This record gives sequence, structure tokens and C-alpha cells, in this order.
Amino acid sequence: MATVKCSIPKGTRDFLPVEMARRNYIFDTIRSVFRAFAFEPIETPSLENLSTLMGKYGEEGDKLLFKVLNSGNFMEGVDFNQDYHKVAPQICDRGLRYDLTVPFARFVVQHRDQVVFPFRRYQLQPVWRADRPQKGRYREFYQCDADMIGSPSLLNELELVQMIDTVFDKLGINVCVKINNRKVLAGIAEMIGAPDKMVDITVAIDKLDKIGLDNVRAELAERGLTAEQIKALDPVFSLSGTAAEKISALEEMFANVETGLKGAAELKELFALINAAGPRCTVELDLTLARGLNYYTGAIFEVKALDVQIGSICGGGRYDNLTGIFGMPDVSGVGISFGADRIYDVLTELNAFPEGLEQAARVMFINFGAKEQAACIGIAARLRCAGISTLIYPDAAKMKKQMDFANRKQVPFVAFVGESEMQNGTVTLKNMSDGSQQTMTVDEMISQMK
Amino acid sequence: MATVKCSIPKGTRDFLPVEMARRNYIFDTIRSVFRAFAFEPIETPSLENLSTLMGKYGEEGDKLLFKVLNSGNFMEGVDFNQDYHKVAPQICDRGLRYDLTVPFARFVVQHRDQVVFPFRRYQLQPVWRADRPQKGRYREFYQCDADMIGSPSLLNELELVQMIDTVFDKLGINVCVKINNRKVLAGIAEMIGAPDKMVDITVAIDKLDKIGLDNVRAELAERGLTAEQIKALDPVFSLSGTAAEKISALEEMFANVETGLKGAAELKELFALINAAGPRCTVELDLTLARGLNYYTGAIFEVKALDVQIGSICGGGRYDNLTGIFGMPDVSGVGISFGADRIYDVLTELNAFPEGLEQAARVMFINFGAKEQAACIGIAARLRCAGISTLIYPDAAKMKKQMDFANRKQVPFVAFVGESEMQNGTVTLKNMSDGSQQTMTVDEMISQMK
Repeated sequence: MATVKCSIPKGTRDFLPVEMARRNYIFDTIRSVFRAFAFEPIETPSLENLSTLMGKYGEEGDKLLFKVLNSGNFMEGVDFNQDYHKVAPQICDRGLRYDLTVPFARFVVQHRDQVVFPFRRYQLQPVWRADRPQKGRYREFYQCDADMIGSPSLLNELELVQMIDTVFDKLGINVCVKINNRKVLAGIAEMIGAPDKMVDITVAIDKLDKIGLDNVRAELAERGLTAEQIKALDPVFSLSGTAAEKISALEEMFANVETGLKGAAELKELFALINAAGPRCTVELDLTLARGLNYYTGAIFEVKALDVQIGSICGGGRYDNLTGIFGMPDVSGVGISFGADRIYDVLTELNAFPEGLEQAARVMFINFGAKEQAACIGIAARLRCAGISTLIYPDAAKMKKQMDFANRKQVPFVAFVGESEMQNGTVTLKNMSDGSQQTMTVDEMISQMK
Repeated sequence: MATVKCSIPKGTRDFLPVEMARRNYIFDTIRSVFRAFAFEPIETPSLENLSTLMGKYGEEGDKLLFKVLNSGNFMEGVDFNQDYHKVAPQICDRGLRYDLTVPFARFVVQHRDQVVFPFRRYQLQPVWRADRPQKGRYREFYQCDADMIGSPSLLNELELVQMIDTVFDKLGINVCVKINNRKVLAGIAEMIGAPDKMVDITVAIDKLDKIGLDNVRAELAERGLTAEQIKALDPVFSLSGTAAEKISALEEMFANVETGLKGAAELKELFALINAAGPRCTVELDLTLARGLNYYTGAIFEVKALDVQIGSICGGGRYDNLTGIFGMPDVSGVGISFGADRIYDVLTELNAFPEGLEQAARVMFINFGAKEQAACIGIAARLRCAGISTLIYPDAAKMKKQMDFANRKQVPFVAFVGESEMQNGTVTLKNMSDGSQQTMTVDEMISQMK
């Protein structure tokens, strides 16, 4: 038989048991916090109609959608003497989901009669993007989203900050939550007389950390702002002090700019709630925070790990009209998304995964042959019933081979059932970390293992 | 903004919170049993190279593969004046996985240096098939697979039966496990002088239940068996009694047929192990069980629900050369796959899902306004820290609206924190099932909720 070259598509990954254990630790932590805050799980199909996905992520996003070829004779009636951009949507009706937000908006509209508002949903599922793969960027990766929709209350925003605080506290990652408000950014654009340039301004401001003030100013000029308008932005760049001080300065700055004042008021209320709740992590107002996605209309969040150099590991914000794209206007929502892959990288770099996550089995029985195996089967059934992960080595191989296996699999206890144990109804248990050995009854063994 | 018609692709599903809770109950049950038997989790990418998938599921399977269009200019250098079968693999390098078995074989070969044999892996992931959708058959559905590879011991087969027994016992479904052996089927073909007709014979025998003996005989004739050969099959159809009796009859029948005798010996040993272990469910030897997939070479399993009319809800078998297709011969393995969707249907029909699975929140705080909300935030933080799913109604809406919400969401407890509770540091807790109300401290509340 010919040897097939074994590989997987670029940008995708296999997960071995040790990686699975670590990933599940992250997912379980996030999920337990979502549950504690009364979020309910949903799932949507991996395949969505392309009409649902196209045009929702900008031109660049459309290019990054994985499109699925129609079944059967996909060529029938299609003119292939056209540009490939035109042909693709004619031979592909469906695509792989690109994020969890657009499918969620579609879900809410489609199931509006079954959903009780305000609705809190969480969703942990993979998404696919035909991006150029690079370190930390994959073509298939998980998103962990929590959104609350149907309520304008800033309590929702507070709870998202509390959830972020709790997740990273549980994971042992020091973080800073950066908060801003899109209305403040809109107010700034309005204030300098360039209300149509809000996106350009926020995109440029977003790069302040990376490229510095001078380059941001150059970019703003390129994007069509006048020297005067750029100069008028100076107060924004020079804001400093606590959140309260920055908010006061904003209120002053926005004296006549209604949107800006509304944003400042929202920030004021949110920071009051946060200060009262007293999160463990740092929370700061960062006016240079913009976030790329244009559907945000209120608070925006981004989380940075303090001890590791990496992009944001969680982000989100308030959107006032997400379901509008599917014909259901005026549903306000706010949500966050945890980046499981980056969190994995942070925990790896910090060496902060708990010990013992990757145990294949808690105890392995040595196989001495048919008669002893029969005795082990009965004992193993009791251990497994008690929820203890138990292995019987499947073949009566040489002792050295069986012990090597237990060592390589890092099994913490090895059990021996030989002649005398069978006679006495006991088990001899070897602790693999210190080599100690003890003979005991099965009941004793169960209580020791638990 | 134009209204977009909201729908999802044919054969796919959204899962609402109540369905998620039920599905997770099934997955968690299966997973806990896999863990108790020391299986380790892996995951493989949704996208595989088409070269990995094509030709592994027969001609029909190839047609049912979802193919993913190449990114960028997929048309470049492709001649579209060909049949669509020829064009598809030129414009699609990747496809969605069709099952978990072929990706697992690919995984084992690709990671042979990291895997310690014997290796037990489990995998719970969706698969995709462009099948015609119908009741109980979807284009995206989950498979729950457990395989043990690298050991020929029949202890593995026993443990699979024990796992099946445990899963369905936990789920409260009465089942019958049917067992057969492919070597017995091969032996039968050899015995009647038609060794090359093993597949035809098993496919026909497989239909015995559905179409009856006469039609099976007719089909065998159609498939090229002589009347004499069909007559020679009579002993097979007339075997009866206990597993031990059937096995004795087989041994007699196979006096000179080596493969058949090997199969009978395997069945004898396996049934001895099963009888000693004493499973709760019925286990029977069913010589008409064939199972479609041709890579099976030893024991084969199929599980039927006894109280619901539905196809098999779990199945599997022993294969001696699965990784051979990827150039790594002689790796014997045995595995089973639980059909989560059919199990869901069975539990629904039996009305056997546990109560209280779908709780959105265990307790909801009524929101009386900013001051009371502030008090609730502090109490909710303590409840959530104790793992209790807690909601604060996000807006100070009318009491009736808030209570209606709690009722619709089936929240079992509603908490009130008003003036007097704030003064005394207490909470008034209303039990929504009997309407009783009690005022207590937060500590008392936590211990009552747990």
C-alpha cells in the first residue's frame, strides 16, 4: 500500500492529550464564570448561508471567508468566463462561520419568539478565517463569547468587568482592563469639526501605542484631517490622571458636544460601579482605545496581560443595533470575547498551568495473566464507578514494559494483584512519585485515591 | 436597512439553551465514562486535506464530502471544460471531516513519536456529510468516539462493552448489545466456497431484520451466489440458543475453516469475559450483525434501545490495519462511537432527561433601583464566588415584569433586598415552586442554595 504523506491544512492544529487538558482547563474556567453570572449556552452551525456572512466583516473579511462548494453539479448554468470573485458566490451557497457575533445576531432574529429578553448567552465554538497563518494566528480557532442583549443598563458592563476579573484571577494572570466609550470618540470627531472622520480618527488613535504620536499625526493628515483639526486633538492625547480626572476633563472639553457628554456620563457611571465593586485587577480609562469593529456604539473593553508581551487577550463592547442587519432594529447588547489561544500562550509563558492536568489514568493495574486479570476487572469496575480513572494494562507483557508505560504516561499509582492479594482480597499500591508501597483493601484504596 | 431572510443551511441546527443543557448532559455522561476508563481526549481540525479524506469512504462517501473552495484566485490554470467531478478536486484542496476515524488514523501516523502505545483516545467533535437531510439525519452532527489501539487483547473489547453498559445505565436507557465477529462472517463465506463474496453476504445478512429471510436469499442470488451456496448458508440462519450454544454450533460448522474457528474462539473468550464481568444490560451474539464499514476485522458491536424504535445508538468494532492507509501497517485497534443525536431522540421519547437541567439562573435578585442594586452587587459576588448561578435583573423595571421574567426563565429562587434587608444585612428569598418566603443572612442563603 502506498504511503500517504500525513499532514493537516496550513493554519490548523491537532491537539494531543496534554494540550487538550490545558485547553479544557481554560474553557472550563471561562465556562464556570459564564455560568455563575447566569449566562446560558447556545450553539450555531459551523456552516452558515453565505448571504448571512457576506458584507458583515468588510471587504477584507469577505475575502477571508471559507466558502464551501455546492454539492452535486456545481458548474451547471455558471459562466466561468468571469472574474473568480463573481464565480465564487455562484458555486458556493454556504461558508464557515467567521466569528460568533454575526451568527448570534442571526440566531436572535430567527428565534426571537423563543428567546426571553434580556437574554444572556455564551458560546464556545471554533471559527474559521482564511488568514495568512503566523505565530499565534490560526485558520481554525475557538472564540469564547458572552453577550447580554435587550438591556441598556450599565450593570451589564460592570458584570462583564467582574467576569473578566474573575476569569483571570482564577487563571492566575495579572491583567489590566482598558475601557473607553465610542460616544467619546464620536464626540471628539464632532468637537474638531470632523464628525465623518470618527473611524479614521479612532483607527489612527488605536495605533498610538505601536507607532507613537508623530506617526499618528502623520496618518491623520493622510486620512484627510487638516492641520487645525489635528492640533485640536491635542487635549485628547494629553489627558492624564485617574479615570475620574480624565472624565472631568472630558466633560469640560465637551461643553457643547452632546454625544461626547453622553459618553462621558456613561463612563462616569460605569467607573462609579466598578470602584464600588472593587475588582482585583487594574481597570483604567484609556482614551486611545478604539477597537476595530465598527458596530460598537458605547463602552469598549480590552484586556492586556501585565506580565507577558502579547496582544489583547479579551475584548468587547456595547453595540446598539447588531440585529439591525437582519431586520430587527433597536436591540442593544454588550458582550466580550475571550481569546483562548492567546490565554494558552500566556499561561505557557508564565508556566502557570496547574500540575496534574494531563493524567491519563490515576491508577494502572499490572497485568500478570488471565487469572489475575479477572480479579483486576472486578476491582477496576468499583474504582471506575467511584469516578477514578483506571487502567488495566491490556496484555500480560513483561513487567518492565508495563512499568515503562506507566512511567511514560505519568500514572501516579500502580496496583499489583498477585497470588497473595487475590487470596486476601487486597491490592498492593505503589506510589510512583516516592516509590512507597502499601497493601490495602479495595475500600481503603478507593478512599485514598479520591 | 433591508431585511435579510434569516435561515440556516438545510440539515444544520441551532441549539437553544434547553437543547444545549440536554446535549451537554449526554456528552458529559459519555465523557465521564471515557475518563473513568482512562481514555485521553484529542481533537483534530475540522478541515482536512482532501487527499486525506478522498477514497476512504467509498465512492458514495466521496460524493458526500463537503469541499472547501481554495482561497484567492481558485480558477487560475483550471480547465472548466471538464466534468464537475474532475474540476472539484482542482479548485478545492481541503474538506470538512466526514468522521472521526480517518482523522484519528492520520493523527496516529503523524504523531507516532509522541503517542505511547497502547493508546486510548476519545474524541467528541462534529462531522459533516452532504447527505440528504431527513428525520434524525443531519449534515452536521457530533460523534463521540473511543478507540484503543496497539493491543490485540480482548480485554479491550470487554471494556468497550462495560463502557456501553455504564453509559446507558447512567442515562437510564435499556439496551441490548449485539456482538458478532468479522472472522466468523469471513469463515462462513469461505465455508460455502465463496470467500470473495464476504462483503456481499454480510451486506445481505445485515438486512435480515428489515427484509426477511426470503428477500435476503433473493438478494444473495442477485449478488451472484449459486443456489447451492445459498442453501449452504442455512445453518447460519438457523443458529439459536445462548451465545455459548451458538459458538459451539459454529465450532462444529467450521471444523475445517481456520478463519471461522479463529472468530469462534475470539467470541468464546469475549463472552466468557463478559459473563464474568456481569453487565447490567443484555448482551447477545447476533450472527446476522454485519455493520457496513469494511475495515472491521474482528469483533463488531451494535447497540439497540429496547424501549424505542430507532436504529442503532452506538456501534463499533476491531480493525487490524486502520493506519495502513497512511503507510503505518499492523496497528490493531478497537473502538466504538456513540450517536449523540439518536440518544437525544431516545431520551426525549422516554421523557428521561433529569429535571432542572435547563436552569438559566438559580437565583434572581429583583432590581429596586440604584441603591438596592448596589447592595445586590455585593451579595451576588459572594454567591457567584460560591459557584451559584446568580442574576441581578439589569433594570429597575416594574415588579410584574421582573417576576414574569423569573417565571418564564424558570428561576427557582427570587431574592429581594429592600430597605429593611439593607439595614439588617439580610436577603428575603422566595421559593418560586411553593411561593414560600424567608428572610435570612447571606451565609444562610449560600448554604441553602448549595
